[in-house]
Amino acid sequence: MNQGVTGGNPKKAAVLEQLKGKLIVSCQARVGWPMYGAEIMAAFAAAAYQGGAAGIRATGADNITKIKEKVPLPIIGINKQFRDDCEVYITPTYESAREILETGIEVVAMDATPRARPGGETVGQILAQIREHYPDVLVMGEVSTIEEAKAVIPMGFDLISTTLSGYTRESIGVKSVNLELIRMICQITEIPVIAEGKIAREEEAVMALEAGAYAVVVGTSITRPEIITQRYAGALYRYGGKQQGDRAI
Amino acid sequence: MNQGVTGGNPKKAAVLEQLKGKLIVSCQARVGWPMYGAEIMAAFAAAAYQGGAAGIRATGADNITKIKEKVPLPIIGINKQFRDDCEVYITPTYESAREILETGIEVVAMDATPRARPGGETVGQILAQIREHYPDVLVMGEVSTIEEAKAVIPMGFDLISTTLSGYTRESIGVKSVNLELIRMICQITEIPVIAEGKIAREEEAVMALEAGAYAVVVGTSITRPEIITQRYAGALYRYGGKQQGDRAI
Repeated sequence: MNQGVTGGNPKKAAVLEQLKGKLIVSCQARVGWPMYGAEIMAAFAAAAYQGGAAGIRATGADNITKIKEKVPLPIIGINKQFRDDCEVYITPTYESAREILETGIEVVAMDATPRARPGGETVGQILAQIREHYPDVLVMGEVSTIEEAKAVIPMGFDLISTTLSGYTRESIGVKSVNLELIRMICQITEIPVIAEGKIAREEEAVMALEAGAYAVVVGTSITRPEIITQRYAGALYRYGGKQQGDRAI
Repeated sequence: MNQGVTGGNPKKAAVLEQLKGKLIVSCQARVGWPMYGAEIMAAFAAAAYQGGAAGIRATGADNITKIKEKVPLPIIGINKQFRDDCEVYITPTYESAREILETGIEVVAMDATPRARPGGETVGQILAQIREHYPDVLVMGEVSTIEEAKAVIPMGFDLISTTLSGYTRESIGVKSVNLELIRMICQITEIPVIAEGKIAREEEAVMALEAGAYAVVVGTSITRPEIITQRYAGALYRYGGKQQGDRAI
């Protein structure tokens, strides 16, 4: 890893090294989801640790605190905040970043699209404030398109992630892991690219590394049993429908 | 479904009809496993219900009771009991069956291999006692080989499952879903066969139905995030090793 990326900071370099080529498991559940709750998130994180994950992604100070009690892995913290008047929801403000940074996370991730955020804050301003107050924490900028990646590269993020691909108006057509976006970002920068979003098979995780990703985040396919169930139930249902159709003929 | 199978009992027939061609999600964790706990099992069952499962498999009266509070699906209950002096651990005695039957489960599953069990009870004796005291409950006999299946067919189980394939000395070589065993059992009996064990992909669940299974149980691949993590982490690790090897050349 070139020194420029972590600014020569040994703490940041050590975390980066730990994640290199590895799996990060995202453990998240919203209010109303069947697995919602900090205790369950901590159990998922412990399972991920036992299964060989190198890092955990989690949202909110309460969940992160519980996870840190149980699991010694580096944490990519986010702070999801949903508001009717704002499209940006992944750590949209400095205050939302500060809340989770206070738990002692190793990486903070934030939406790095140019979209408007509460209070008129800009990505650059939030990043600068994190740098000033938490110099040992890696900061990851999350984007959905190559244009957004191009715009954030000069800002000086430690990591860039493809997390938002498929979740913005600009990328709404993306329905599976965006290998092309990973490839394109890796071609134009030395900043490590974290592959995240819609990885549903082990092969896809490997393809993300092949495309140039520095590490891979898998969430839904490990920690959302309702969605995994849906995939199995759906496959059996389609098979049943096909059998019915065959009989009708 | 022929009347003989459920003995014309409408309650049993209704449960069978509900499971036909569908997914059953097994929600189990042992003491010491990261997801252990009745509350988490109930959360998994709720996730399975939301995802479209038609039934839940669970072990122990405490877990089953919590699950029944949250989820209206039929439950295949088992009572795992591990003893140093006995190989049989899935509902090995009538007393272990009675404990879970008292929670109001719709199906009770038990080891139906000829192996010795505590107190010298036999499979036939346990089945007869369940029939006498719980006539509206379906009873599933679990086997690991075609020989065991042949031996239990005349005993009058409502369902036969392949759950033990790969978990007995007689079947120790089986490492993935045993489609051949499903096919063989289906060829020699009208009793519905439930496919269970080592299903790790949606395609394998469909193949189990194609092989003749009446319904399919998936556990690990939905409710053991430590094993799902291991699959992803292992795939990335092998890719990394391969890259290292390439560079060494």
